[in-house]
Amino acid sequence: MRNGEWTGPTVYKVPGFVQTNLVVLPQADAYDFVVYCQRNPKPCPLIDITDPGDPTPRVAAPEADLRTDLPQYAVYRKGVREKNVTDIRDFWRKDSVGFLIGSSLSFDDALEKAGVPKSKDVWVLNTTIPSRPAGKFKGPVVVTMRWMTPAQAVIACQLTGRFPYNHGAPLHMGDPAAIGADLENPIVGEPVKKIPDGVMPVFWACGVTPQRVALEMKPELMITHAPGHAFITDIRVEQFCLP
Amino acid sequence: MRNGEWTGPTVYKVPGFVQTNLVVLPQADAYDFVVYCQRNPKPCPLIDITDPGDPTPRVAAPEADLRTDLPQYAVYRKGVREKNVTDIRDFWRKDSVGFLIGSSLSFDDALEKAGVPKSKDVWVLNTTIPSRPAGKFKGPVVVTMRWMTPAQAVIACQLTGRFPYNHGAPLHMGDPAAIGADLENPIVGEPVKKIPDGVMPVFWACGVTPQRVALEMKPELMITHAPGHAFITDIRVEQFCLP
Repeated sequence: MRNGEWTGPTVYKVPGFVQTNLVVLPQADAYDFVVYCQRNPKPCPLIDITDPGDPTPRVAAPEADLRTDLPQYAVYRKGVREKNVTDIRDFWRKDSVGFLIGSSLSFDDALEKAGVPKSKDVWVLNTTIPSRPAGKFKGPVVVTMRWMTPAQAVIACQLTGRFPYNHGAPLHMGDPAAIGADLENPIVGEPVKKIPDGVMPVFWACGVTPQRVALEMKPELMITHAPGHAFITDIRVEQFCLP
Repeated sequence: MRNGEWTGPTVYKVPGFVQTNLVVLPQADAYDFVVYCQRNPKPCPLIDITDPGDPTPRVAAPEADLRTDLPQYAVYRKGVREKNVTDIRDFWRKDSVGFLIGSSLSFDDALEKAGVPKSKDVWVLNTTIPSRPAGKFKGPVVVTMRWMTPAQAVIACQLTGRFPYNHGAPLHMGDPAAIGADLENPIVGEPVKKIPDGVMPVFWACGVTPQRVALEMKPELMITHAPGHAFITDIRVEQFCLP
């Protein structure tokens, strides 16, 4: 990725290592954002915060450079998305702070090892669940959704609860309307007319939540990973698996 | 406590509810402090951060007032400790930010239920384990120490690992010298000449760490709970017990 040789998605790549969402904000917005994340640990499990201007995430990957080591970045100016880029050295400022936020991508391997096959599709949906506001930051929680049989959902509740830095246990199972999720209008994924027989939708808090919330306040400059193009840390998934 | 009827320690009081350390700092120091806590989750598990000037911890105890609802407070001006008080309304400012940090006091009941009797003594010790610095904040980790038989220590490792907001699993077991802990010179507890037969010392990261680190930079005004006189939240210990 640093050499520009891989610019594709990271979904199911480099199994066994924690993948994270990236949000880069000017230092002026950093305090409210970190308090927002602390108050909303399920959608926003903070794994690392860089020092202002320092592109190295010293906890998560001490030899990495957040300006070059993701396959693709999304750039937003005053809330308007510009063209994706594969390198943000020209956008990085002395007051840039990088936030790495855990991603549910990391636990798909653990689920598979426990007998829950990887989902062919993962939907991303808006809900009406409010997050806890902090300063300028507020808005509803975004979720991911996977189909599971009830037996798989039982395993998933047990297993994902052990990954608090990867959104933890589900936020909800069953009726999408109970959390205001409209399966016919997903953010990501094909519209769903009818839930297939024998499976139930299982919902996890999603790391897209803090991006959406940050965009609402139209920051002068915000850079994130491009959807599906996460940062891959040096941390093994098992290091976050609490006994 | 609010009425001044109880000004004593909270150790082993109100079992079943999460107890926390309190640190109050001016907003100017809050960003570095929250990043410090995020980088050091074992000694500094952040449970709540109040809005500047707001004395109510809206996550941990939405009807509480941090200025009156602890039994005793320690007050430090430029790093010098003043007389303890039982009410900090006169010290609270428009830019005061309250931080609630998990405490190992919360898991003693859970240990007892799992067959590990409550320790008659809990020591607090300095170590040479460095914490991860953030801005002005840096310094070594402070630990608590309990004697346990090896069988009790095995249970404690399993059980306390399920309480990540209460310092989680032990930092160390066995030889105190390996972490630079001097049992003859504890911060709290009687000096120990010889470890008794049949038990081993088990060490947890301690919430005194962020207080010590904050004091090093001599903040204009810092208020904390008085040692042993913690804030008792509305959160049940089991709510933090990850499956």
